[in-house]
Parts: sequence; C-alpha cells; structure tokens
Amino acid sequence: MSETLVDAPEAVAAYLRARTDTDVETIVGCFAPDAVVHDEGRDHVGTEAIRAWTNGVAAAYTLTRTVRSVRSIGPATVVAVEVAGNFPGSPVVLHHHFTLTDRGIAALTICP
Amino acid sequence: MSETLVDAPEAVAAYLRARTDTDVETIVGCFAPDAVVHDEGRDHVGTEAIRAWTNGVAAAYTLTRTVRSVRSIGPATVVAVEVAGNFPGSPVVLHHHFTLTDRGIAALTICP
Repeated sequence: MSETLVDAPEAVAAYLRARTDTDVETIVGCFAPDAVVHDEGRDHVGTEAIRAWTNGVAAAYTLTRTVRSVRSIGPATVVAVEVAGNFPGSPVVLHHHFTLTDRGIAALTICP
Repeated sequence: MSETLVDAPEAVAAYLRARTDTDVETIVGCFAPDAVVHDEGRDHVGTEAIRAWTNGVAAAYTLTRTVRSVRSIGPATVVAVEVAGNFPGSPVVLHHHFTLTDRGIAALTICP
C-alpha cells in the first residue's frame, strides 16, 4: 500500500492490506458483528451485509489503492486513499473514516 | 429535529440541535480540539478550521434538517439526516458518521 500505513492502527492496516489482496474473510473479520459500513451512498449493517458488500466491490472493480494520509484521533482513524481502476473518473481520492473498538471496526464510511 | 434524536448520544444531539439553531459556538464546542470534519469532499482539522467550516455552511445555506435514523455502535454514531433548502437536488439524505470521545466529537464525516 504505502509507507504511511505504518502509522495506522492494526485493524485499519489489516483492512487495507486485505482489500489489496481481495481477502474477503479477513476483511469481514476486521469488523465488529454489528458494524455499519457506508459506501457509495448505501448502508451495510452486520456481518452478512458486510460480506456481501465486500464481495460486490471485489467483483465489480479491479483497483489499485495508495494510502496518501493517516490521522488518528482517539477511536477515530481517517485515511485518504487514492483509488485507481476500471471506473469513470479514475483515479480518485476516497476518504475513509473508521471508528475502532476492541471488537474491531465499528463503523466505516467511504466517500469522496 | 425529530423524535428519533432522543436515541442519540448527548454530543450528537447537541450538535444537531445547534445546527438547527445556527449556534456556531455551541457547534464548535461539541468537538475535541484536534477533531476532523469531512464535508463536501474536504477536511477541516482543529477548532479554528471547524469554526470556519461551521460559519461557511451557515452563510451559504438555509437548511431544514430532519433526523431519519440514529444507530450507535460503541463510540460510533451514524445518523441519516434529511436536508432540505436552497441547493440543487434538495432534499437529500446525508449520512453523518460521528466518532465520540470523552472530549467531544473526534471525527465527523458528512456525505450522501
């Protein structure tokens, strides 16, 4: 991904590494069972919905991700990820807002 | 705002009430000093930047906000707010992802 990932909390780094490797079960395992993901304007709540979302992203796109910045404030980590691939307007920088708990990622919002 | 706001943590309810009242200093006081706000594709980091962002939104728009749903998962609270006003495409539902700490809101991301 990028050298800046060394600044990220472990759950965030694990998520971003697994995304690069399209490792669906590792991605799902990064989240708390009742986590909420918001991506492309939609909510995905709980393990099964997050698995379906993860598979959907992996099936729809071939993406290259580069971490541009990482900032942590308490349980929040905000990561700017440059995403390039087979979509109109590529590349874009996507804002990732993670809320972390000791059970994993509780909430993730991805948006421009 | 809405009956559903009674389900929100106090800092989130205070933020949304103060937005309705365009009470800039109360809004700024809801955030931790090193908080990050991401809105309309831009980051606003720290008290002074958050005050400028708050003033900018208040100056640019006359908005009506209606809380549609509130979900809390540990330190994360996710709120769907219907926003209507003087902008193209009104009304829209905006996703608000808050990360809370005992110092206030650590991070807020607003996006469709």
